[in-house]
Amino acid sequence: MSDLTTTHLYREIHEQPAVLTRLLLAERAAAADLAVEIRRRQVDHVVVAARGSSDNAARYAQYLLAAANGLPVGLATPSLFTVYAAPPRFGNALVLGISQSGQSPDIVAVLAEARRQGALTAAITNAPGSPLAQMADFVLHLHAGEERAIAATKTYTASLAAIALLSVALDEDPKRRAALEELPGVVAQALALAGVDRVAERYRYMSACVVIGRGFNYCTAFELALKLKELTYTVAEPYSSADFRHGPLALVSEGFPMVIVAPSGKMLPEMLDFMATARSRGAELLVISDHPEALALARVPLALPTGAPEWLSPLLTVLPGQLFAMHLAHARDLDVDHPRGLRKVTETR
Amino acid sequence: MSDLTTTHLYREIHEQPAVLTRLLLAERAAAADLAVEIRRRQVDHVVVAARGSSDNAARYAQYLLAAANGLPVGLATPSLFTVYAAPPRFGNALVLGISQSGQSPDIVAVLAEARRQGALTAAITNAPGSPLAQMADFVLHLHAGEERAIAATKTYTASLAAIALLSVALDEDPKRRAALEELPGVVAQALALAGVDRVAERYRYMSACVVIGRGFNYCTAFELALKLKELTYTVAEPYSSADFRHGPLALVSEGFPMVIVAPSGKMLPEMLDFMATARSRGAELLVISDHPEALALARVPLALPTGAPEWLSPLLTVLPGQLFAMHLAHARDLDVDHPRGLRKVTETR
Repeated sequence: MSDLTTTHLYREIHEQPAVLTRLLLAERAAAADLAVEIRRRQVDHVVVAARGSSDNAARYAQYLLAAANGLPVGLATPSLFTVYAAPPRFGNALVLGISQSGQSPDIVAVLAEARRQGALTAAITNAPGSPLAQMADFVLHLHAGEERAIAATKTYTASLAAIALLSVALDEDPKRRAALEELPGVVAQALALAGVDRVAERYRYMSACVVIGRGFNYCTAFELALKLKELTYTVAEPYSSADFRHGPLALVSEGFPMVIVAPSGKMLPEMLDFMATARSRGAELLVISDHPEALALARVPLALPTGAPEWLSPLLTVLPGQLFAMHLAHARDLDVDHPRGLRKVTETR
Repeated sequence: MSDLTTTHLYREIHEQPAVLTRLLLAERAAAADLAVEIRRRQVDHVVVAARGSSDNAARYAQYLLAAANGLPVGLATPSLFTVYAAPPRFGNALVLGISQSGQSPDIVAVLAEARRQGALTAAITNAPGSPLAQMADFVLHLHAGEERAIAATKTYTASLAAIALLSVALDEDPKRRAALEELPGVVAQALALAGVDRVAERYRYMSACVVIGRGFNYCTAFELALKLKELTYTVAEPYSSADFRHGPLALVSEGFPMVIVAPSGKMLPEMLDFMATARSRGAELLVISDHPEALALARVPLALPTGAPEWLSPLLTVLPGQLFAMHLAHARDLDVDHPRGLRKVTETR
C-alpha cells in the first residue's frame, strides 16, 4: 500500500489552516471594497454561477448572505446563457462567479452577460489572471497556491472563507470578524482528528450512501457527497433532511449508511429529530458534529472542536469528511490524486 | 405476482391525459388573471417554494419562465424562514408555492412571509381549500382528482402544465398556446409505449444509477430519480450533464447504468456529446428521446412521439420514466402504491 502522506491530496488537506490565514489577511481590503460598492449601488440580490465544488460554495453563500446580510441569493442556470440564448434579466444584482481555475466557459458566459447588462460582477478564484477574473469588476483571490490533486479541498474551504469575509465586510460586526479570524486555528484542531483511517476500513465495501445536511450545512452535504463520488466512486447522494423526508426516505432499510452533518446551532434540533427517524428505520449513522447529543446517536462519530458559531461551521464540518473520503479511497487502493476520468480543469458550455 | 393494472399508481399514470385536458380548460382564466397582475405590478422575478416532486416542477418553472418570459426564477430556501428566522427580502417578486396537498408548514411559511412583505403570492395545488391556497392571492388548481398512490405522477405533470399555462398567458403567443393545447393527445400517445415491463426485468438487480438531463429537462432528471428512489429503492442520483462532468464522472465504470433524458431541441447536441463521453467510459445508457440519433446511442431506448417543442418536452419525457419505475418496482415485487416508510402528506418545517 502506498504512503498516503506523500500525496498531493494529503498535503493540500493539511495546508488548509495556512491557506485560510493567508486569504483572510490578504483579501480583507478587497472584500471591504466590494462591500462598499454593493452598498453604494444598493444591490438587492445576488446571483452565483459555479460548477462542482465551487457550486457547493455557492450554496454556502445562499444561506450566509441571506441569513446574515438580508440578501436573497439565487444560483444561475448557465444553460439559459450558453445553450438557450435566453439570459434572464439581472436587475440590480451582484453576479458572482466562483471557479478555482476561472476557466469554465459557461461560468465566464454568465459574467459576460451580467457585464453587458450593467450589473456588478465579482469573481472568487484561485487564478487572478483567468478569463473569469478578467470579466469581473472585483476579484477575491483564494491564495490557495496550486491545487494539484484533482479533487478540490483547500480551494473549497478558501472559497467559503472568501464568502464569509464578504459577509463580515458587509455588516462590520466586530464579533463576527473575530470569530472568522480565529477560524484557521480551529481548522487545524479539526484536522488533527485521529482514527479516520480505521473508520474508513468499515466502509470498504459500501457502494452507495446518502449525506444529509440542512441550512448552513446544506453545502457540506453536497461537498462531502462529491468527494465520496470523485475519490471513492461511491454513489453518494446529498439531501436536506426536509427534502429527504419527501420521498427518498423509502431508500432506508436495515444498515443503510447515512452521513449526517449536525453541528451545534439552530438546525441541531431538526437534525436530532431526523437522526431519530433514520435510526428507527435501521439506518447506520456516521455523524459529524461538535455536539455530544448528536455524536451519541452515531454508530460512527467524527467529533469536531467545539465553540465555532453555526455560520462558520461549514468550514469545519467538511474537514472530517475530506479525511474520510481520502482514507476510504486509500482503503480501496485508489489513486487519491487522480480519480479515473477526471482532469483538473473541466470546461463545460 | 399481483395485477399491476388494478393499482392506484397504474390508474393515475394513465389518467394523465384526462387530467391535463381538464386543467388546461378550467385554469386558463385563472392563469390569465395572474398574468395580468404580474404585468400590472411589473413583477421582476419569481421565487418558488416547494418540496419533493413539486420542487422538481419548480425546476421546470426556473427554465421556462426565464427562457420564454424573461423572468429570473429562484428556488426558496425554506429553512431561512422556519429555522433561522432570517427571511430574505422578496422585493417585487411573485412568490409561488407548489404543493399537491397544500399542507407542508415550511412552504406555507414562505408564502406567509411573502404576504407580510407585500409580495404577490400564488399557489399551484391540488387542494384549493388547503392552508397554502388560503395564503395565496391567486390559485391554480391542478384538477387531478385525489392522488392515492404515494408517489406523485399525475399531480407532477399537472403542476408542469399549470406552469406552462402561466407562461403562455404571459406572452400570449397563439402558436405556443396551440402546442400546449395539443399536449394531452401527445401524452396519451407517449403512455401507449409498449415493452417497458420487459425493459424493467433487465434492471431487477440494479442498486444505483444516475439520471442525466439538462436545461428544460433538468427537472425530468430529478423527477425520474425521485420515482426510482421512492418506488424501487434504487439510489438514483440526478445530474445535469455539465455538473456531472465536474467530478461525478469518476463514478462511471464498465456497465454503469445511466438514464439519459435527451429530447429534440437546443440541448440535444450537448446530450449527444455527453452520451458519447459516457459510452467511451463503458456506461450502459437507457435513453428517453424522440430523436433517432439519441435513441441509436442507447443500449435500451425508450421512444417518445415526435413533434413536441422542447419547452413542452418535460411533460412527455417523464412518462416513460414513470412507467419504467412502476414496472421495476413490480419486477421487484414491491407495493407500488405504498413505498415503505412514506405517507402521502409529508409535513416538514
